[in-house]
Amino acid sequence: MKKLINDPQAVVTETVRGFARAHADHVVLVEDPIHLHRADAPVAGKVGIVSGGGSGHEPLHAGFVGYGMLDAAVPGPVFTSPTPDPIVAATKAVDGGAGVLHIVKNYTGDVLNFETAAELAGMEDVRVESVVVDDDVAVQDSLYTAGRRGVAGTVVVEKCAGAAAERGDDLDAVAAVARHVNDVTRSMGLALSSGTVPHAGEPSFTLADDEVELGIGIHGEPGRERIPMAPADQLVDRVLEPILTDLDAPAGSDLLLLVNGMGGTPLAELYILYRRAAEVLTDRGHHVTRSLVGDYVTSLEMQGFSLTVTVLDDELTALWDAPVETPALRWGR
Amino acid sequence: MKKLINDPQAVVTETVRGFARAHADHVVLVEDPIHLHRADAPVAGKVGIVSGGGSGHEPLHAGFVGYGMLDAAVPGPVFTSPTPDPIVAATKAVDGGAGVLHIVKNYTGDVLNFETAAELAGMEDVRVESVVVDDDVAVQDSLYTAGRRGVAGTVVVEKCAGAAAERGDDLDAVAAVARHVNDVTRSMGLALSSGTVPHAGEPSFTLADDEVELGIGIHGEPGRERIPMAPADQLVDRVLEPILTDLDAPAGSDLLLLVNGMGGTPLAELYILYRRAAEVLTDRGHHVTRSLVGDYVTSLEMQGFSLTVTVLDDELTALWDAPVETPALRWGR
Repeated sequence: MKKLINDPQAVVTETVRGFARAHADHVVLVEDPIHLHRADAPVAGKVGIVSGGGSGHEPLHAGFVGYGMLDAAVPGPVFTSPTPDPIVAATKAVDGGAGVLHIVKNYTGDVLNFETAAELAGMEDVRVESVVVDDDVAVQDSLYTAGRRGVAGTVVVEKCAGAAAERGDDLDAVAAVARHVNDVTRSMGLALSSGTVPHAGEPSFTLADDEVELGIGIHGEPGRERIPMAPADQLVDRVLEPILTDLDAPAGSDLLLLVNGMGGTPLAELYILYRRAAEVLTDRGHHVTRSLVGDYVTSLEMQGFSLTVTVLDDELTALWDAPVETPALRWGR
Repeated sequence: MKKLINDPQAVVTETVRGFARAHADHVVLVEDPIHLHRADAPVAGKVGIVSGGGSGHEPLHAGFVGYGMLDAAVPGPVFTSPTPDPIVAATKAVDGGAGVLHIVKNYTGDVLNFETAAELAGMEDVRVESVVVDDDVAVQDSLYTAGRRGVAGTVVVEKCAGAAAERGDDLDAVAAVARHVNDVTRSMGLALSSGTVPHAGEPSFTLADDEVELGIGIHGEPGRERIPMAPADQLVDRVLEPILTDLDAPAGSDLLLLVNGMGGTPLAELYILYRRAAEVLTDRGHHVTRSLVGDYVTSLEMQGFSLTVTVLDDELTALWDAPVETPALRWGR
């Protein structure tokens, strides 16, 4: 294991300390119980939005804390759900009187701990709604999941819900936006290599030089199958096909296309993939009207990518375009 | 070699096609001779700024084309300088009547080809000034260099010069800003692993599991020495020391700290490094007043990082803070 870390047990703490120091204009780190919130939280009268989950997927979620997106992020240990305590603390920290939305990726631990936290916060008179993200079409159930996994589509959910909260929507309306985005969003990933969990010290799985894992999870969970390594365009086609089949977008849809790197893939390769994916979607008669290319939901230093497609309407396009000012996503303000 | 590419010979073309399509709101791709320019180029009365060099360092340079930074970028083949032709074409495309600044990383091929291009453009009545960036303190001469190499400090030069051009400085003034930034900027890098040039098919160098290359170049050129793998904080100290010795910043300086990933390093690790570097600089009595953490000047999928430190004055701080709207750097507008 060759990593730029100190003590494997201190990876999360040292990461968020560096993060909070580099982005002190946007976020405040609370170390006990560990969470990060907007520097100006709580925003009076605005619905607060909290997300979180195991670490190792940076910039998700802390990178999306700021104006127009999340009010707080709760980082668990690497690939491990945060406990309810810090989720409750984050929820209370961002409640500006209009209630709080929890955006939860669909993993058993996350769902349980966010549920418990929502109940505990409710006992302290914070109204909480929860939305579970399950955009990954790769597999129905998985190593840590009942039902589909939540992967890179989470970024789209967080962005659009954040914009809805910022414009003054009430809690039910913000939750409805988040659920709607999840309903019209599908993702799938592919890995060339595995990441290594720091305290494990060994790669989570191994792939031969001539094979890739199709439908990989963001914790290295098994996907659909191992297939032979192939040119980028063929791999894009293999990932895009199940997404399009499952999404069943109306002919001529406006689409958001997110090409997400898994942590160890150069940006140049992501653009090669984007080029092909945009071409295929256009050939199918759709319009790629919004795009995002980069590392947003990673899996340590895994080499690989995921594609996410969201069907846009005027409402979602406006929410996507709305100003956002976070460490990892910033535009329009 | 396991890469998300198609034909190794088509890597640059396919990358810039994907890039231009994803960022059609900012940039226009011209394929023959290959260059990318701002969608609104030329901006009448504004000094144009052109940079370029071998590909494989994405998002440098095309990722910095847009309002407040570069007017055009000229991507060469992977790790190979572009020829004068596309540099001339880019220079003419962005000349709004106020002349054009070339920002050139100090590699022999780049310097020669940009010089030739400047002469050719001059014959067509475009006034060109050139600034050579040589911020890497690792080695005096190198595989492709007479003198010091130009590395991640280039981002700081391009940002500040771009802001100066945008506010209306004339060509001499913009060039003076670029030279000043270069004078107060130092960088050094370190690699855990090598990238693989697509058409070469083999890693550029190999490192044992227990060693790292200190002072690595962005093309995998040899650095100062191979040292044993060590905890992140110790590696940061080894990289930062030569920077501080060479920079000789006045006591209590305001500093910009850029922690740059080389392409295959997870963002979380960069924040761990940032944390230590900021701590050391603060302990030395300096003030880290501006920060940038991420992949900005990469070397294919190399695992590793570089640190860049710039001494800020009020003028440079204002130029750094000025609005920028490019695919890879965006704020304040």
